[in-house]
Amino acid sequence: MGSIVHPSGVTSNDETGFSTPKITAAEGNVGESRSDEHPQIPGWFAEHCPIWPGEAHFLKVENICFQGKSEFQDMLVFETSTYGKVFVLDGALQLTEKDECSYQEMMTHLPLCSIPNPKKVLLFGGGDGGILREISRHSSVEQIDICEIDTMLIDVYKKYFPDIAIGYKDPRVKLHVIDGTIFLNSVPKGTYDAIIVDAFDPVTLCLGRVLCIQGESFWFKSLDIEELLIKSRKIFKGSSDYAWTNVPTYPRQVNIGVIGFLLCSTEGPYVDFRNPINPIGPENYGISKHPLKYYNSEVHSASFCLPSFAKRTEANKSTAKKI
Amino acid sequence: MGSIVHPSGVTSNDETGFSTPKITAAEGNVGESRSDEHPQIPGWFAEHCPIWPGEAHFLKVENICFQGKSEFQDMLVFETSTYGKVFVLDGALQLTEKDECSYQEMMTHLPLCSIPNPKKVLLFGGGDGGILREISRHSSVEQIDICEIDTMLIDVYKKYFPDIAIGYKDPRVKLHVIDGTIFLNSVPKGTYDAIIVDAFDPVTLCLGRVLCIQGESFWFKSLDIEELLIKSRKIFKGSSDYAWTNVPTYPRQVNIGVIGFLLCSTEGPYVDFRNPINPIGPENYGISKHPLKYYNSEVHSASFCLPSFAKRTEANKSTAKKI
Repeated sequence: MGSIVHPSGVTSNDETGFSTPKITAAEGNVGESRSDEHPQIPGWFAEHCPIWPGEAHFLKVENICFQGKSEFQDMLVFETSTYGKVFVLDGALQLTEKDECSYQEMMTHLPLCSIPNPKKVLLFGGGDGGILREISRHSSVEQIDICEIDTMLIDVYKKYFPDIAIGYKDPRVKLHVIDGTIFLNSVPKGTYDAIIVDAFDPVTLCLGRVLCIQGESFWFKSLDIEELLIKSRKIFKGSSDYAWTNVPTYPRQVNIGVIGFLLCSTEGPYVDFRNPINPIGPENYGISKHPLKYYNSEVHSASFCLPSFAKRTEANKSTAKKI
Repeated sequence: MGSIVHPSGVTSNDETGFSTPKITAAEGNVGESRSDEHPQIPGWFAEHCPIWPGEAHFLKVENICFQGKSEFQDMLVFETSTYGKVFVLDGALQLTEKDECSYQEMMTHLPLCSIPNPKKVLLFGGGDGGILREISRHSSVEQIDICEIDTMLIDVYKKYFPDIAIGYKDPRVKLHVIDGTIFLNSVPKGTYDAIIVDAFDPVTLCLGRVLCIQGESFWFKSLDIEELLIKSRKIFKGSSDYAWTNVPTYPRQVNIGVIGFLLCSTEGPYVDFRNPINPIGPENYGISKHPLKYYNSEVHSASFCLPSFAKRTEANKSTAKKI
């Protein structure tokens, strides 16, 4: 999923209140010795996190397909019996073949199905190509820009995850191998209909009509969704909403199977993210060889429904703190 | 959650196609030596499952509160830093204080909010008392029968999980310490408005107007939801539907964070499980000291929305097999 840095579950203290992935939280331990603080099992991959102690999730490494280091980061690809191939970046699990669909599809279609006729889409991170594959299903889209600095990462995905990296084959895709901040400064505001951020802090992302960025899990204790939405409405001057999806293997010790999405729109016509006005169905293949696996319009709307403890109301203020 | 046997993720081959929890799947390993096949970490509790190899989830045991053996089963209560106290039965994680709400509330209010004016409710298993606590919120209910054979289990919950076992304090609750099958045979058909099964095979459960039983996770490969619903409609002669909730700690290697619910109604007026006609809100405390944490009417309806791969349609038949 995020190909630049690993979302850590740490909520930043900057003015926006957006989640900022600052920590590379987990460490791979395929048979090697690590800190005594974390349990290890030779031959198994572990994720564990200093901010979520006392919990560890292990996947048995059936076969190491690739281990290498780019200019920017360490990469590891291994096979598991249950989740298919797994990609690990700087020790942090990025995706598995089994469940990548629930993240990639939701992150893409939640914003793109919420606006009429999206034409220009910008993707930050997402170097694996899965979100590109999903954007490709939208026939209205004319231009897909992706900003990803690590070309070796792209090559590794192309070699070991062809069904994911297939997104690069869409002729509308243009890869910009450039630092995200530099790219941002080179683009006029309002250039894109939608911006999908699968990588870093979106503070300056007012370039698009709608924006989708990964948020924390609603199970994460420090996340105050109401506050996040109020702040983001102030910044982006439009609507904002929080949705979530279920990704079994996603860093459990932080997000425990749930990934949140923050959706924002800038000034202009009201965007009602909960009701997709631009629906997409299983018949939309785009560059993909498969129909949609996870997303459908019903799941779209349902993904905005939150447990009571995650809503901040007078009635459950004390409850929310107890979770 | 299930207090009699541990749901294993194994779909039975009996005539109903209901999931039958036949295997005690996981094994506790608090510091003790177990089979070489499964990884162990001294001082950590592990769940691992023979039918879901290559994956293991560990919780660090901060403090063992209780270890004992009843006439029926082994029990373990320990504290964790993240999930509060954890209850383990025959080596299988049953519930944690942090996330029990999402299971107990959904399993209770999905059926009870779907019918008008429920008066008599029967609970199988659920000896922890959490579902009783939730039934207690419904003021229309006059009689709550629970069938639980292991009184020591109840006592352990009362001592270590008072906020869960508080359900027993509702004066409408009547505990039947008797084998479930014997109890079933002693009760006339149609006695109850709702039956909640937190324990075992519901093949013979035509005693109630509506029935809620734990189903597999939609991520479980062998689960064919459409087939399950068709079969249960044939058996119960009413409506049937499948919902799900997110329980982070629930046996991940089988259900991976998602628990399904099968809801069925018997002959009579059509029950539309998706749209709660008998809503319940945070103001309904019943015997509980807290408002609802997880459940609300919006979450009720959303819980029936399924990923595309979990629906069996012509379009995604091949996809479903790939997940």
